[in-house]
Amino acid sequence: MLIPDYVEGTFQMSTPSRADAVRNRQLALDAATALLAEPDAALTVEAIAKKAGLGAGTVVRAFGGKEALLDAAVAGLLRPVVARARDLAADDRPDRALRTFLGELMTFQAAHHAAGDNLRGLAAPETTALRGELVAAVETMLTGAQRAGRVRADIPLGTLTAVIGEAAYAVARSGAADHIDAFLTVLLDGLKPST
Amino acid sequence: MLIPDYVEGTFQMSTPSRADAVRNRQLALDAATALLAEPDAALTVEAIAKKAGLGAGTVVRAFGGKEALLDAAVAGLLRPVVARARDLAADDRPDRALRTFLGELMTFQAAHHAAGDNLRGLAAPETTALRGELVAAVETMLTGAQRAGRVRADIPLGTLTAVIGEAAYAVARSGAADHIDAFLTVLLDGLKPST
Repeated sequence: MLIPDYVEGTFQMSTPSRADAVRNRQLALDAATALLAEPDAALTVEAIAKKAGLGAGTVVRAFGGKEALLDAAVAGLLRPVVARARDLAADDRPDRALRTFLGELMTFQAAHHAAGDNLRGLAAPETTALRGELVAAVETMLTGAQRAGRVRADIPLGTLTAVIGEAAYAVARSGAADHIDAFLTVLLDGLKPST
Repeated sequence: MLIPDYVEGTFQMSTPSRADAVRNRQLALDAATALLAEPDAALTVEAIAKKAGLGAGTVVRAFGGKEALLDAAVAGLLRPVVARARDLAADDRPDRALRTFLGELMTFQAAHHAAGDNLRGLAAPETTALRGELVAAVETMLTGAQRAGRVRADIPLGTLTAVIGEAAYAVARSGAADHIDAFLTVLLDGLKPST
């Protein structure tokens, strides 16, 4: 009994079945995604492995490293946010769409503190691409609102988008729901063209 | 020659003269203050000691620990900012004073990235007290501007001050001068009472 178990264990460790590999990948991804929603969670390979019920080595093998795993987890969270931004960018009241989108984005950021912090300095190509799509959607909303005479046109679009992004992220991270509301009220009034 | 030198060295290490202690304290403080203005500087005792030309033990002894040293260095930087805020809070155009003060504060924050980051989680009673005075001065400006009908009164003062502080700090840290200007333009317009 002892020897067959050992042999089987060794065999599985060196060449896990395709089904096991897929399952381990999903377990690691789910664990990382769950940790991204925990305030101040340390997203180490060990913490992810513990949450997934896997060994640290298995987690690393499943993704080829922590960077790729975090990139996949954050990208999985961002994909529906990007889809929502694209829908809203097609709204016929772009200033209203902008407020709706920023409110949802900030609520998402407030619930996923760990996402931004843990990706800082890491190579995360999928997340970077999705962030670029988010920025593009916000610029579409801003341009549409400017064309409709509802957002000021005296500040360069890139500066405006960057400043909104920096400020919104900071308020979302440190603030409660009433901070997010107050920020959006002041911001959207401040974005109106001066009369 | 060798023995007297050694004896003198030993004597100085165990009981430094009063003048040496004052000098070492100032050297450590100047080094920490200079490092606070360097982007991404690591404010370790070792880095401060190296910059001061002192031993790490001497730096620790001069202040009783890194926390007290950083508190003293950041407080030294904040003191003139607080004095300026108090002067501006007495201005007869509080909305104009608010813009001037926030602009100067953000320029200060942009030049001292390391100050906020390195104090996070440390006990820094002097800095905390000065920050409280800054917040009080900003609230005086906001209240005065509200009374003069120049700032909206439909958001609680504490919420407004917190949101402005969070957003301004984030923009100052990540932005260039044109980001600071754009932020202040949008913010101050957004703070006007709705007509």
